[in-house]
Amino acid sequence: MPSVKTRSGMKNKIDLGATVATYCPCPVVLVGANVKEKPNFLPIGWFTGAGFKPPKVAVVLGKVHYTNQGIKGNKTFSVCIPSEDMVEATDYCGVVSGSKADKSTIFEVFYGKLKTAPMIAECPVNLECKLDKVIDIGQCEIFIGDILSTYTEEKHLTNGTVDLKKIKPFLLSPSHLDLQYYGIGEPKGKAWSAGKNFKNKRKRATK
Amino acid sequence: MPSVKTRSGMKNKIDLGATVATYCPCPVVLVGANVKEKPNFLPIGWFTGAGFKPPKVAVVLGKVHYTNQGIKGNKTFSVCIPSEDMVEATDYCGVVSGSKADKSTIFEVFYGKLKTAPMIAECPVNLECKLDKVIDIGQCEIFIGDILSTYTEEKHLTNGTVDLKKIKPFLLSPSHLDLQYYGIGEPKGKAWSAGKNFKNKRKRATK
Repeated sequence: MPSVKTRSGMKNKIDLGATVATYCPCPVVLVGANVKEKPNFLPIGWFTGAGFKPPKVAVVLGKVHYTNQGIKGNKTFSVCIPSEDMVEATDYCGVVSGSKADKSTIFEVFYGKLKTAPMIAECPVNLECKLDKVIDIGQCEIFIGDILSTYTEEKHLTNGTVDLKKIKPFLLSPSHLDLQYYGIGEPKGKAWSAGKNFKNKRKRATK
Repeated sequence: MPSVKTRSGMKNKIDLGATVATYCPCPVVLVGANVKEKPNFLPIGWFTGAGFKPPKVAVVLGKVHYTNQGIKGNKTFSVCIPSEDMVEATDYCGVVSGSKADKSTIFEVFYGKLKTAPMIAECPVNLECKLDKVIDIGQCEIFIGDILSTYTEEKHLTNGTVDLKKIKPFLLSPSHLDLQYYGIGEPKGKAWSAGKNFKNKRKRATK
C-alpha cells in the first residue's frame, strides 16, 4: 500500500485509495414522496442541512431510486426522522423498492400544507419540504428542499425545542466492516465553547 | 401553535414552522484548504457522501467562510475526520476565523498527491479531494469533491478496513437545546438485514 510520512515522521499514513466517503456515521432519515399517487419512503444516510436563512436540507439519492421521480413530479418531499424503536421498519424500507412493494401501509401516513409530501406519524420529527432544485452530480442527484414545516409532538419537546434524548434518532455506520445502525452516545463537550479551553491553553503555552 | 391530526387521531402533530434542519446529529469533520498558501481548517456538520462510483463527498459551507476561497482557488480540499480526543481542538477551529487567526500550527499538517489539500496527521482518517463542482444554493455553497485518496494508519484498521471503534468519530447535535458533541452509542441492528425480520413479521401478519 502506498504510504506518506508526515513532517515529524511520527505518523506513517497509508493510502487506502478512492474508497467510499463516510467513515463517520451518518444520520438515518426516511425520505417521503408520493410516487404514482402512493406514499413511498426511502431510508438514507446521505442527508444534510443546507442553510439557515431560509432553512434548507440536501438529500443525496442514487438515480436508480424509485423515490426520485415522485419528488420531481410533485416538487415536494419530506424528511422523516425515525426513532431507535423504528430500526427494523426503517431498514425494511431500504430492503425493498417501492417499484415492487407497496410501502404506503407500513406506517400511519399524514400530510401537511403541501398536500403531496407524505409524512410518518410514528416518526418523532417530520420536515415538510418544497423542492428548490435538483442537481445532477453523476451517479446521484441532490435534491435541495426548503423546509416549510417541522411536525412533532408536545411529548418530544423540552422548553419548546425538540429534545434529542426524547426523539432518539439513530445513525448508520457505512463502513464495510460492520454496516451497523448505532444510537447516540455520551456528551463529549459543548459546541462553540469547548474550543475556548483549547484557546486558553494555547495562549498560556505561547507566553 | 398550528397542529395537524393524523388519520387515526392518535397522534396530534404540532408545527414548529420553518426551523433549522437537522434534529438528528451530524458527523463532525474538519474541511482543510490552503488559503493564501496557508493551511486552514473549518469544522462542519453539513457533510455527506455523494456517490460510490466514483466516490464523492458533498460539503455545505456558508458563503461567509474564509475556507471557500481556498477551495475555489486550488480546486482541492480535504475532509479530516477527528477523533473524540480532538473535541477541544476541533471546536477551537470553529470558534476563530482563519481570516483572523493562523490555524496552520494547531495540528501537524501533511499533504498527499494533490499537494494543495492540507490534511491533519492527528486525524485517524483524511480524505483527499479534487473539486468537482461548486453549487450556489443561496446562503451556502455546496462543494462536490472526488475522493482520490483515503489516508489512515495501520492501527485504525481491522481486516484492512477502517474500524469505527478505533477511530472514534463524534457528532454534533445542532438542536438549540444543547449544541453538544456526542460520541457514537450502542449498536441497534444490522443495516440491510434488520428489515428482513420486519418483512417476515408482516408476511405472517397478513396470512
